[in-house]
Amino acid sequence: MDILKERILEQGTVVSDQVLNLNALLNHQVDPVLMAAIGRRFAESFGGDNITKVLTIESSGIAPAFATAYELGVPLVFARRKKTLTMDEDVFCERAPSFTKGIVTDVVVSRNVLSEKDRVLIVDDIIANGDAVRALIRIIKQSGASVAGLGVVVEKTFQPGGRLVRELGIRVESLVKIAGLKNKTMQFES
Amino acid sequence: MDILKERILEQGTVVSDQVLNLNALLNHQVDPVLMAAIGRRFAESFGGDNITKVLTIESSGIAPAFATAYELGVPLVFARRKKTLTMDEDVFCERAPSFTKGIVTDVVVSRNVLSEKDRVLIVDDIIANGDAVRALIRIIKQSGASVAGLGVVVEKTFQPGGRLVRELGIRVESLVKIAGLKNKTMQFES
Repeated sequence: MDILKERILEQGTVVSDQVLNLNALLNHQVDPVLMAAIGRRFAESFGGDNITKVLTIESSGIAPAFATAYELGVPLVFARRKKTLTMDEDVFCERAPSFTKGIVTDVVVSRNVLSEKDRVLIVDDIIANGDAVRALIRIIKQSGASVAGLGVVVEKTFQPGGRLVRELGIRVESLVKIAGLKNKTMQFES
Repeated sequence: MDILKERILEQGTVVSDQVLNLNALLNHQVDPVLMAAIGRRFAESFGGDNITKVLTIESSGIAPAFATAYELGVPLVFARRKKTLTMDEDVFCERAPSFTKGIVTDVVVSRNVLSEKDRVLIVDDIIANGDAVRALIRIIKQSGASVAGLGVVVEKTFQPGGRLVRELGIRVESLVKIAGLKNKTMQFES
């Protein structure tokens, strides 16, 4: 997705060999027009697969997942990291570390919003080690639902997340692949 | 907004005299079609006010704020609760308690995404005590930007948040007002 790659080059900043800051366009500030284009792209890719729900995890996944769910005409569910007072008692729960937050949290989805009838598309902003996404996959399996695939805006292919999800037999579509962040520049994979 | 009120009656559950669980349609699962209608409504209400950015706070505010920003054709910014590794060093920061989480956190917005040129519409899912929204207002003032108003999906009028924001001279539009949650039922204010 060339427009996205251009925007990442223009507005992203390389923090270290491991960390790319996309706060200007993805993780903190969001361009709704770009995000709507991302949603259309994922909807086109996975639209033939009878998807009933789009699942993501708070917070940065919500905008691209919302745009995708809107295009597909299905509900969006965003998993919570750890329990809040208003969360149902009856939840699916898996532990997952957060790459950016440097902590391990519970990933929580209410049992009321996923069932064995669901065909679920996971959408997330960035995949690095893939811990959060793999927790979502385990939650979908716990619920008896099936996984249609993973749509991810940016895949860091020098970290194992995308590969680990593909090795589970799950279709992954990443719109931009970043092969490295050495010397304070982005190396893209075409 | 009658359709929203119907959906709240149908899918919301009263947890206690203070807490309404809207996980089925707002805080955990989201209907994108309903959310797009909410976004259009806020865009119509505030659209004449030269808004340059929509500001919300993670996580439940993101979907209605995204839909509003999309309709207005301006960027969305979602404030973070506490710092992450990819957050800029240079941030606006205010402390605020979370009603649902029962903890006090930092509310953080990067200095790169707000300036004195901005006219900001705040959008959030629910207003109870209004601590998070008032932290956002202080952040907007810190940045030199101006506040166009607050659009909130559900106002709990038996809690002081909406009133406190109006007392600051800020225009508040709430789509559904809930006057009480006694006896496990919702009392709406017309």
